[in-house]
Amino acid sequence: MRFSLGCEIGYDIAEQSTLIFNIEAMNGGRQDVISENLQITPFIQADYNIAEDTGNRYRRLIVNPCQLTLRYDAEVELRPLHAMPDVIDEVPVSQLPLDILPYLNPSRYCPSDQLARFAARQFGHMEPGHNRVTTICNWIHEEVDYISGASDTSTTAADTFSMRAGVCRDFAHLGITFCRALGIPARFASCYAWQLEPQDFHAVFEAYLGDRWYLFDATRMAALDGLVRIGCGRDAADTAFSTIYGNVNPLAMRVWIKALNADPTQEWTTEAVSLAKD
Amino acid sequence: MRFSLGCEIGYDIAEQSTLIFNIEAMNGGRQDVISENLQITPFIQADYNIAEDTGNRYRRLIVNPCQLTLRYDAEVELRPLHAMPDVIDEVPVSQLPLDILPYLNPSRYCPSDQLARFAARQFGHMEPGHNRVTTICNWIHEEVDYISGASDTSTTAADTFSMRAGVCRDFAHLGITFCRALGIPARFASCYAWQLEPQDFHAVFEAYLGDRWYLFDATRMAALDGLVRIGCGRDAADTAFSTIYGNVNPLAMRVWIKALNADPTQEWTTEAVSLAKD
Amino acid sequence: MRFSLGCEIGYDIAEQSTLIFNIEAMNGGRQDVISENLQITPFIQADYNIAEDTGNRYRRLIVNPCQLTLRYDAEVELRPLHAMPDVIDEVPVSQLPLDILPYLNPSRYCPSDQLARFAARQFGHMEPGHNRVTTICNWIHEEVDYISGASDTSTTAADTFSMRAGVCRDFAHLGITFCRALGIPARFASCYAWQLEPQDFHAVFEAYLGDRWYLFDATRMAALDGLVRIGCGRDAADTAFSTIYGNVNPLAMRVWIKALNADPTQEWTTEAVSLAKD
Amino acid sequence: MRFSLGCEIGYDIAEQSTLIFNIEAMNGGRQDVISENLQITPFIQADYNIAEDTGNRYRRLIVNPCQLTLRYDAEVELRPLHAMPDVIDEVPVSQLPLDILPYLNPSRYCPSDQLARFAARQFGHMEPGHNRVTTICNWIHEEVDYISGASDTSTTAADTFSMRAGVCRDFAHLGITFCRALGIPARFASCYAWQLEPQDFHAVFEAYLGDRWYLFDATRMAALDGLVRIGCGRDAADTAFSTIYGNVNPLAMRVWIKALNADPTQEWTTEAVSLAKD
Repeated sequence: MRFSLGCEIGYDIAEQSTLIFNIEAMNGGRQDVISENLQITPFIQADYNIAEDTGNRYRRLIVNPCQLTLRYDAEVELRPLHAMPDVIDEVPVSQLPLDILPYLNPSRYCPSDQLARFAARQFGHMEPGHNRVTTICNWIHEEVDYISGASDTSTTAADTFSMRAGVCRDFAHLGITFCRALGIPARFASCYAWQLEPQDFHAVFEAYLGDRWYLFDATRMAALDGLVRIGCGRDAADTAFSTIYGNVNPLAMRVWIKALNADPTQEWTTEAVSLAKD
Repeated sequence: MRFSLGCEIGYDIAEQSTLIFNIEAMNGGRQDVISENLQITPFIQADYNIAEDTGNRYRRLIVNPCQLTLRYDAEVELRPLHAMPDVIDEVPVSQLPLDILPYLNPSRYCPSDQLARFAARQFGHMEPGHNRVTTICNWIHEEVDYISGASDTSTTAADTFSMRAGVCRDFAHLGITFCRALGIPARFASCYAWQLEPQDFHAVFEAYLGDRWYLFDATRMAALDGLVRIGCGRDAADTAFSTIYGNVNPLAMRVWIKALNADPTQEWTTEAVSLAKD
Repeated sequence: MRFSLGCEIGYDIAEQSTLIFNIEAMNGGRQDVISENLQITPFIQADYNIAEDTGNRYRRLIVNPCQLTLRYDAEVELRPLHAMPDVIDEVPVSQLPLDILPYLNPSRYCPSDQLARFAARQFGHMEPGHNRVTTICNWIHEEVDYISGASDTSTTAADTFSMRAGVCRDFAHLGITFCRALGIPARFASCYAWQLEPQDFHAVFEAYLGDRWYLFDATRMAALDGLVRIGCGRDAADTAFSTIYGNVNPLAMRVWIKALNADPTQEWTTEAVSLAKD
Repeated sequence: MRFSLGCEIGYDIAEQSTLIFNIEAMNGGRQDVISENLQITPFIQADYNIAEDTGNRYRRLIVNPCQLTLRYDAEVELRPLHAMPDVIDEVPVSQLPLDILPYLNPSRYCPSDQLARFAARQFGHMEPGHNRVTTICNWIHEEVDYISGASDTSTTAADTFSMRAGVCRDFAHLGITFCRALGIPARFASCYAWQLEPQDFHAVFEAYLGDRWYLFDATRMAALDGLVRIGCGRDAADTAFSTIYGNVNPLAMRVWIKALNADPTQEWTTEAVSLAKD
């Protein structure tokens, strides 16, 4: 399916500052950027880099005092892999690829060590596999309230577990935390999310199952095969859409995504979905 | 029922220090101290006080460098009130006695504000009353593992809720926290506990229901009508058996309690039990 | 000095709810309520109570769905005790009155156990006395930024110590925490604060020194002898101006205090100030 | 300088388990493994991998129930780069290599977001460069007590900052946290540490300055040019010497390192030291 998407972000730059952006759609695997345009106003030459391990795309700008606007427009084609959840297994730690192992470690917002006992009690005796991670998502969806403003940038999955409220980022952190506690590698993914209401950047997570990363969204706010991934990493600390060094004031932000060839009668898939590299 | 109980505690006092002890059995209400003896070796004159609101009994000693030993021996008669749980109601906040209200506030180890949403989700729709607090205890007994060494003196009920492991003090803190979050006044009680294995000081909690404080023990490690209360307060911060100001090293400690007229075939009661003042 | 003060608070009551207010000025000791009026609209009979230990005054209302407004107006005379800080000693734990001891215990927002080592390092070797508590206040004033919105209702003094930002309530909690860690009883006090800008309820703390409670304000935002105390307790958990049980929406709030006989050229006192009962 | 080093670790394996070890000395850059031997008893074939980004060396074993012993012996030559601290600059974020940027992000034990304000207050106005990181280490050495048992596996740098006590791992975490908060990339390094008393695995940190990673040890317990690095990562979560999946009981552990050609009269260097790849 093909999507037209983008965002526009403004900043008030009060002193010379460095800004790093990760807002461009990943390109590769099952997600092809057909066309795109990044407009920086006023025009500033930006460093461009693609992280080797994740494919995250970074623009780094050194900006003098001004009103800065970034506008990104892209057309992206998703060719999701769909699979039957029943046949997707977990991978024993003994067989995980080495570069996947760090996604088992606790991270800033995903202290999997702290929730290990609960995860084992609640999900430990279930059949391993894709369905177990879906059960985790169902549990989060049932037991945690989606409430804007319930969390802040210091909220960990352990806080969310106690408070029982959060936003998409917190739902993803909690899912990742339970997975890691069970020995399932998991990572955070930021994305443009088709049909998300209201439109904004979205956060979901990926679990490594079988031979690839599968998508999960405990919020159930968007279709899995309508997620255009931007960045992935250990948790939100690795995948900020902007990182700012300097005296900078964020102004308005707008995010959008539209399907160019959607069948409006289509139901959201109940199959497993992967958009990562094979 | 009548109990013979006591404790012996040793300290290595390295410099002049102040020690405050709360190890003597409460006297009054449904708990009568028949006889008792507190032996301090070497002999030191101790300040003696009974807190007006709780009945806690304090000994304050100023001790010069020495090996200090306290030995407490007592015979205590319990005349517990037994009642049918079904007929014991909660008291609406609008009708609670004023001096009970502070037991609704969050405290050091019982941050009831943090677990309020969970408490409401899990227990909020239940019929108010003694049975609801029993359900809370059952939940804790099911969901938290009793593990020596799983917690320390900084562990709060929110930590225990996440970690799902703790000791009697943590079980009591979690019960108190859930009660307060639901509008049920609750307090911590330290005690000598008949049949507790291994023998030690024990911690349980009391909830204010109907017109009095009822006892609850989420650990199920001792009979409710075999609990000889020592101190009660908002949480463990208020009810330490010893508080030390100075350079003091604790040595060995021994705690004991025996029933003088027990019927060994007796089952633990399933009725509501109160030992507090009417 | 005499003050005219008051507040007006509105609530949208969506269902029958119980509200407990502690907004009336304490009456007694060195603070006399000359005249006062509490107007509840619509008129609702309120339970009235004065806590024996603290003198806090509580109104408890059972309110049916409505728009509720409370307006409190009072004239209060302060007759502060002024004393030379140099001669005010700390009281050794061995000589503290029994009913003061609980103010040495850690509480919800004042985990004095967690900051004990820092307090000992930073303030432990100083001469005991009123000046030591002033040094604590100076340290807080230097090292913590006063920033509205930097904290929320779950913020403890340990959080404030790490984050180095907070509001008056956080400054008071941190002062209390350091005091308790050093063996100085300390408690939280809410008040009307003359010259506070912008006008609002204020939070300060009291330390027990010599034979009474002395006032301290690490924010330096108001004169100590212009503080009309409303409630005091272990920390903010004990001294909320309103506690709400039910589905209630707070509306606008207004707080005011004016000096009726102020000398506008007067400097803030540098002497020790106590307004508590002798 | 050349070192003979090693370790011996035992485990009681109760069920088939997967163990991942990172105990072998890094090989490359300014650290050459001259000879080495890893003996696994009973003999078990181990997966062997070197992480591309860090050079960490991993052995993965699938072990059936048994008493497992690993013994590692190696001879390692260090050819440290020594440099004058005064001329080593920090690298502005605008010029940092992309693969270094993740070491600016907060991680499980290094919540640099939480201590950002303190770091800016305390170290923000200092001249950037190697000396600033040394000042950070001096601050930690002065303000935090090295106390065995003061922390556990859930202790973060924010906890250590409040508690003011910890072990080598906590000292490293706090140093990393301050660096990241100031925009200096920093990472955790586990190592064999010559002259460390008592002998054990040691933890230090590296900051990215100039064009390379420089070593820092806030504990001052070992010479920087006597550190044979084993693993590096974002924090201790990435650099465990053993990671265990299964029912496994650790038994005794022994660690040793000796200099083969040490000049016993040599003072510890006061120069900057780097042992990482150029």
